[in-house]
Amino acid sequence: MTRPGIAVVAHSGGPTSVINASLLGIYEEAARHPEITLLYGAQNGIAGVLQEDFIDLTRQPKELMLQIGQSPSSALGSSRREVTAGDLERVIEIFRAHDVRYFLYNGGNGSMGTALQVAGAAREMQYDLQVVGIPKTIDNDLLETDHTPGYPSAARFFATAIRDIGADNLALSGQVEIVEVLGRNVGWLAAATALARSVPEDAPHLIYFPEAPLPTQKFLGDVDRVYSRLGRCVVAVCEGQLDENGEPFGADVRSGSRGSLAMNLAHRLAMLVASRLNVRARSEKPGLLGRSSALCVPEVDWNEARECGRAAIRAAVSGMGGQMVTLVREPDNLYRASTGLAALERVALLERPFPAAWRNQAGNDVTQEFVSYATPLVGAIARHQTLERHTVARRMSVQMSSERPAQNPPSTTSA
Amino acid sequence: MTRPGIAVVAHSGGPTSVINASLLGIYEEAARHPEITLLYGAQNGIAGVLQEDFIDLTRQPKELMLQIGQSPSSALGSSRREVTAGDLERVIEIFRAHDVRYFLYNGGNGSMGTALQVAGAAREMQYDLQVVGIPKTIDNDLLETDHTPGYPSAARFFATAIRDIGADNLALSGQVEIVEVLGRNVGWLAAATALARSVPEDAPHLIYFPEAPLPTQKFLGDVDRVYSRLGRCVVAVCEGQLDENGEPFGADVRSGSRGSLAMNLAHRLAMLVASRLNVRARSEKPGLLGRSSALCVPEVDWNEARECGRAAIRAAVSGMGGQMVTLVREPDNLYRASTGLAALERVALLERPFPAAWRNQAGNDVTQEFVSYATPLVGAIARHQTLERHTVARRMSVQMSSERPAQNPPSTTSA
Repeated sequence: MTRPGIAVVAHSGGPTSVINASLLGIYEEAARHPEITLLYGAQNGIAGVLQEDFIDLTRQPKELMLQIGQSPSSALGSSRREVTAGDLERVIEIFRAHDVRYFLYNGGNGSMGTALQVAGAAREMQYDLQVVGIPKTIDNDLLETDHTPGYPSAARFFATAIRDIGADNLALSGQVEIVEVLGRNVGWLAAATALARSVPEDAPHLIYFPEAPLPTQKFLGDVDRVYSRLGRCVVAVCEGQLDENGEPFGADVRSGSRGSLAMNLAHRLAMLVASRLNVRARSEKPGLLGRSSALCVPEVDWNEARECGRAAIRAAVSGMGGQMVTLVREPDNLYRASTGLAALERVALLERPFPAAWRNQAGNDVTQEFVSYATPLVGAIARHQTLERHTVARRMSVQMSSERPAQNPPSTTSA
Repeated sequence: MTRPGIAVVAHSGGPTSVINASLLGIYEEAARHPEITLLYGAQNGIAGVLQEDFIDLTRQPKELMLQIGQSPSSALGSSRREVTAGDLERVIEIFRAHDVRYFLYNGGNGSMGTALQVAGAAREMQYDLQVVGIPKTIDNDLLETDHTPGYPSAARFFATAIRDIGADNLALSGQVEIVEVLGRNVGWLAAATALARSVPEDAPHLIYFPEAPLPTQKFLGDVDRVYSRLGRCVVAVCEGQLDENGEPFGADVRSGSRGSLAMNLAHRLAMLVASRLNVRARSEKPGLLGRSSALCVPEVDWNEARECGRAAIRAAVSGMGGQMVTLVREPDNLYRASTGLAALERVALLERPFPAAWRNQAGNDVTQEFVSYATPLVGAIARHQTLERHTVARRMSVQMSSERPAQNPPSTTSA
C-alpha cells in the first residue's frame, strides 16, 4: 500500500549487546518486501543522516550479517547528537533526494522523541515517510512495552557479575563490596542483580534504587547490619543514586542534557563505609562493559531484538508509521512474547521508573513479583557449587583469639 | 618413601577463576596415593589451619568436585592473614595432633614465603612434613615458572573487556575511555589487553605499566595524539600506576603490607583528560570481576591449574617438599607445557616484573615478543565483524558543519 522507496535505519544513544540483532532482523525482513527498493544504514545515527553517510546494507552478504547480528555494540555506529529544527528540515530534504520512504530509528525514549519530530517534519513538508521506532535500551525505561531489547543482556551481565564478585567476597570475607550498576535515573538493572541470589545469604545483600533518595545514615546502618551478621556485604547501587540532599554522596558529577551523572559513586560509598564503619571496603565499576559484553546475552533477548527489527519493517511497509514496536507478554505461565505497536507520542521522552511496588519496604531489595517478571527475560543464574560440610573434629584445646575468624586484619591488603 | 599421613590443602590471598581446578587436581591425585590417608581442606587458608577448621575432602562426591573444579573463586575460602612465629609453632602442633604429613599451599609469592616458614618450623620442631607450594596468582609475578595459573583467565577477561569496550567506544566515538586493570606492582595483565587488537586502530590504544612511572604530561600527550588521529581513545592502566612523583595522580590510596593501592586511579585519569584536554572521558573498573569471572577461562589455564594440583601431590608423596610446582614451556612452535619444581627459597617474596624488553620504546605498548608469549595462554580474541564499506554516493551539496562528525558535543551525555 505504501509508496516504494528506500529504507534507512539509524542507531541512537548507547549501544547494547543486541542492537545488531535488530539490524539483522531489519535486513532479513526488508529483503522480503518489494516496496523496499534498497536498505541503507546511516553511519553514526542521525549525525550520519545529516552528512548523507549511508552504507548500502542490501549489498552486505547474508553470512556477514548473521555474524554481525551476533556481535555487541552498534555495527552502524551511533550518535548522541540532538536534532535542531534546521536539522529536521535537512533530514527530510536528504530523504527526498534519495527517495527514502521508510525510516527506522532504533533507540530509547529520547530517540523516540526524535523519531516523532522527523515524522512531524515529513508531514509538514508534505513528504510521504513512514517512521517506525525500534526500542533499545539497557535501562528498560520505555513505556508501553513489557521490556526493552538490550535490558535482559545487561541485566544478566550485572547479575552474573554480582554472583561472581559475591563468591570472591565470600571466599575472602571481612570486606564490603560496592558494585556500581548502570542506570542513571531508573533502578531496573540494579534490581536485576537480585537474580544472582539462590539462598538468602547470597550476594547482593543490599540493592538501592535511584527512584528514591538514599539517606547516608540509612545506607551505613544497612551495611553495618549485614556485615555484623555475615562478616561481609555486597551492595548493588546505580550510578545515578542520590542521597537525602539530592547529592551523589560527594562523588564527582558530569552534567548532561538528561540530568547529572555521578562518576565515582561506588568509590565514594566504599570510602564512606571504610571511614565510618571501620571495615575494609572497595568498589567495582564494570561500567560500559555491562552494555557491550557479548558474554551474557540470553537467547530471549537476542531473538526478541531480531523480531523487533522484523516487526518494524512490517509496520513500515503496512503504512503504520508514527509508532514504536513493543514487546507484549502473553498472559501465560510459560513466558512468551509477541510484538505490538504503540504511538510514538506515548513513549517519546517519557521514562518508566522501577515500580515502587516492586521495591521492598526497607527500600533495599526487590519483591518476589519483580523476580517473577525478570527471570524469564534474564534466565536463571546458576549458583556455584559448594563443598559438603564434612567437618573434622578438633584435637587441640581451642586457642583464644581476639580476631573474628571470618575477618582479615584491615591493614593487610595483598591481593 | 614418605611417612603415611593426612594431607592438608589451603588457599591464600585473592581467589582466581581456576584455583578450584587445582583443588580438583589435588583431590584426584591424592586418591591415587596410599601414603595419603585422608585429604583435608583448611577453611579460609592458614587462618583455618590455626583454628583447626578442616573439611574432609576425601568424603566429597567425585561429581561435586568436578563441578567445583569448574567454579571460580575459592571453594575452601582463602585468607590474607600473615603468620607470626607463634602461629608457625601452632601450625606444626596442629599438624602433629592430626598426623598431617603433607601440606599443600596454593598462593602467590607471599604465600610461598609462608610455605617456606612452615617447612622451616617443621624442621626445627623435628616434625616430618612435606610442604609443597602450588602457584596461583592473576598477577603472573612469580619467578621460576613460565606463568601462573589464574593469569591466563584474568588476562582473557581484561582483553575481552577491552575489545568490547573498544567496540562501544568506536560506535559512539568522541570519547576517551580509561579502563583500570588489576595489578598493583606489575603490568602483566595490562599488557595482555594488547591481545584484544586485530588491527592497529583497535583498542587498546595505550597501555601503561606500573613498573615505570608515568609522567602526567606524557600521559596527556599520548591520549591527545591518539584522540586527534582517531577521534577516540581506549587506555589500559594498572590499578597501581604512579606518576612522575611516585603519586597515584591524586587518587585515594589504601596502604597495606605490600605497598599502597590507588583506589580510584582510572577515575582520576579520566578527570585529568576531561579537564586538561577538554574531551569527554570516562572510566571503567571491572575490578575483582576480572579474577572471579568464570566466563573467560581458557582451556589451557584450567588444564594447567588442575595439573599443578596433581603435580603437587606427586611431589609431596615423593618427598620433594620445600618446593613449588612450576609450569615449564616446551621449546616447540606449538604451545606445550609440563610441570616442574623450584625451591621455595627461589620464589618466596620475590616479584617478577613485566620485562622492560617487552615494553615498547614509548612505554605505552607491548612488543610482538610479549604477544607471542601470551597468545597461547590467553587464546585468540576474535574481532567483532564489521560491515563492508558499500557507501552511497551523496546527492546533496555538502553542509558545512563546525563539528567533526566523529565527535559528539561534550554536553549531551544521555546514555
